[in-house]
Order: sequence, then C-alpha cells, then structure tokens
Amino acid sequence: MKKQKNNLYRIFGINNVLAVLRSNKFLIHKVIIQKNGLAEKSDIILNLIKSSDVQLQLIQKQNFRKIYNGIRSQGVVVEFTGNIISKTLPKFSHKKSMCLLALDHIKDPQNLGQIIRTAECSGINGILLPKHHTAPVTNTVLQVSQGAFVNMNLYEVINLKQTLSRLKEDGFWIIGIENDISAKHWNEIDYTGNIAVVIGSEGRGVRKKVIESCDFIGTIPMQGNINSLNVSAAVATILFERLRQIIEK
Amino acid sequence: MKKQKNNLYRIFGINNVLAVLRSNKFLIHKVIIQKNGLAEKSDIILNLIKSSDVQLQLIQKQNFRKIYNGIRSQGVVVEFTGNIISKTLPKFSHKKSMCLLALDHIKDPQNLGQIIRTAECSGINGILLPKHHTAPVTNTVLQVSQGAFVNMNLYEVINLKQTLSRLKEDGFWIIGIENDISAKHWNEIDYTGNIAVVIGSEGRGVRKKVIESCDFIGTIPMQGNINSLNVSAAVATILFERLRQIIEK
Repeated sequence: MKKQKNNLYRIFGINNVLAVLRSNKFLIHKVIIQKNGLAEKSDIILNLIKSSDVQLQLIQKQNFRKIYNGIRSQGVVVEFTGNIISKTLPKFSHKKSMCLLALDHIKDPQNLGQIIRTAECSGINGILLPKHHTAPVTNTVLQVSQGAFVNMNLYEVINLKQTLSRLKEDGFWIIGIENDISAKHWNEIDYTGNIAVVIGSEGRGVRKKVIESCDFIGTIPMQGNINSLNVSAAVATILFERLRQIIEK
Repeated sequence: MKKQKNNLYRIFGINNVLAVLRSNKFLIHKVIIQKNGLAEKSDIILNLIKSSDVQLQLIQKQNFRKIYNGIRSQGVVVEFTGNIISKTLPKFSHKKSMCLLALDHIKDPQNLGQIIRTAECSGINGILLPKHHTAPVTNTVLQVSQGAFVNMNLYEVINLKQTLSRLKEDGFWIIGIENDISAKHWNEIDYTGNIAVVIGSEGRGVRKKVIESCDFIGTIPMQGNINSLNVSAAVATILFERLRQIIEK
C-alpha cells in the first residue's frame, strides 16, 4: 500500500470500511465493491452506503483483482479524506482514570496499527505520536488497526518531553515501560489514576531524556531466552493490566 | 518466503540466526552472510560459526540482495533441518504450575509466529497445534517468532478434544478464551495451577466442541467499538495475567 497523498486514504476490508462508513469524521469519496465478492453480500455495508449517499462503484472481479492485486480486501475498498491525527492536545485535567499512551521510536507500521487496535479495545483515551520518532500514520497503519483509528484519539506531538511535562502539570503520572535498573515489575505500578504510559521500540526502547521525565518505570520480566517481547504484545500486557486494576478497584 | 520442503528451513535476521546457532537441536547446513552487512560486523555470530564448525558462505552485497530480494535479513541467512514440532505429548502430571497453550483455527502465520514469541517470553511450557485447524509452521512463522521457536515446545495434536481430555486426566484445568454467555472476566480465572489455555481465531473463535471440553471460560471485555482484539494481543493479555498471578501468589 502506498502512503496517502494530501490526506487521501485508501483502506480495505469489511471491518475497516464499516468503521469509516459509520463515522461522521471523514469525507468519503467512494466505496469500490467487487461484484460477487464477500462485501457485496453484506447488507450492512450496502445499506450504510445507500443511507449515507456515498458514491458506490461496482467492479467486475477480474478488474478488481487487477487493480487491487495481492491485497486481502474482502472485495471492498473505501477512499476518503479527513484528519486522522489531531495536532493539539486538549485539557484533560477534570477527568478521572484517563490513560494516554505515548509511543517513542515505533517505526514499524504493522506494530503501530496493532497498537492502535489494542488501545481501542482496552478503552484508553488517546495515543501520543511524536512527529519525528514514530512511524507516520499511513494507509498500512490504518489498515492493520481494523477500523480502530476511527474511535481512537491520535495526537501528534512535536516534543514528547515537553508534552509529558505539560501532562504532569495537569496531574498526570508518567509511567515509562523500559528495562531499567530502577524499574518495578509492570504489575506493581498503579495505573488507576490519570496516567500517560510511555513505550519505546523493542530495539532502542524509550529515549533516555524521555525516561528522565517518568515518575515510575515498569518492566515486563522476560521468562524465556529470547529476551524481547514484541512491542504490541507489551502494549496489550500493560493496557489490560490497567483495565484489570480499574475493574478490581 | 516459501514453505519449507523436507524440513529444510531458511530464516533471516540476527536474532533468528543466533537462536539457531546456540541451539543443538538442528542440523545447520550453512550460514550465508552479506559482505559488509550488519551481521558481518557481529562478532557473536562470527565466533559462534567458527566454534561450531558451521559452513559459512560470504556473498557480495549485490548478489545477496538479488537472491534475498525484499527480505529484512540484516545480512544473514541460516539454512537448517530438524524437527521443530514434536508429534508426541509427554506426561506432565508431576510438574507444578505448568501452562500449555492450545491454538484452534489460528490460520495466519504472522499471528502464529507472534504467539510463539509471546509464549516464550511469558515462560509457558508448550503450545499445542492441531494438525488440521491451525496454520502450518512455515519459515514465515519461525521468522516472525524471532528465534522463540528454538526454546518453545511445539506439539502437533491430531484431535484437540481428545488431547484436552487426556490433559484433564493428568490433572490439568482447561481454560477456554471465548466470548461466551458463561464466560467470566479473564482476570477472575485462576491460572496458577496446571492449565491448558485454549484460544481461537478472531473471526471464528474456538470450535464449539472444543469449548465443551473447557472447565472454565474466560473473556477479555472489549472497551471500545471495534469489538475485536488481535489474537496475539489476547494471548499476551492472558499469559502475562497468568505470570502476574504466579508472581503475586
């Protein structure tokens, strides 16, 4: 998949297209459906297209396959424009049990997409994406998120350290996930307040100057020999530990 | 990457090659290294190759790239034969806090590879792979596992329901992860004994007849709108909840 130009996004598959059709955040240019494909049998999609007055383009199987060669599309594509990422962070201070996830050095679009999906499922409030140290939000990222990007607040931040300082002033605790000498086990940290969780890539981790901004540092102790959990698995572990603590409180 | 033939495997990258070189489970045919690539600068790899008397083939960058076009190889490839999967399940009954993960309907090699990686990091004892309802263990699966397959017991099972019955006789509790009416929240289940955790794909879940074999059913309640966690994220959530319970016990 190519990177979007001028914020024109193109994503595939029933879950993704449904999420975009159900949202009112985007300007939908058209939905392309393969004749006799999986999506053409989906009444939910067809009814949503009708009721929202979206342009529908039906294409013969042969042509559809020629254009979208090798993509697991389930026979449906949506093209749309809109702002996926917000450039300003709102004031959060009057809310309770807020959780923001800050990503540092996540360069792999697959991982970023999976993280957005997991974050949405775990019920956190937003993801901070440093402009210069994180993969850009491309079609691939949206695709992998399986529609989660529609319901998850994504915030671009220019300077993560400064943003974390501002969040601290607003009463947030900053929790870094890093294999550091001062780190506690991930389950010994209290995630039930207003928090920002900072996570880095498997290879490079969180930048040192960002770790210095953290109030607490947590680590997931590796029980095997390979000593490296995939970053999206680490995110799932942390965010559902947070949910557990909130449920059990 | 192609499927292996006659159990000849070919995998890429420093982590994967290191894991294979350090193991004594496999017959290593050769290691191929790109001249002036990342791996050629790794003394650990070069010393391991020397000390283990493995055939090393050095290839010019141009040729290496021609042969392994488009693969993130870090300039190193290993070719080996060996049994990755065991066809017999040993007796486990005298051990404590054993955990086996049984996969049902996991068809995506990326997910399977990630699950093997997460399982190794979480310290469980093995993975049950039904012969007919799970992706085969291909080069891609090994590749994605980042060397974890070397340290994780993989067991092929012909009939998962029968295998679960046998494990029950050996004193295992069977825990199914499924969004079922009778399901408890994932954190309300005790994972500290000898257990087998059964997990299915996002789309189809665990087969009904397999769910019927479960002593407990757990679910991860979705907090967002997309209502579907990636299966490898669900595995991370469950297996590190198990680790938390064992640590805190």
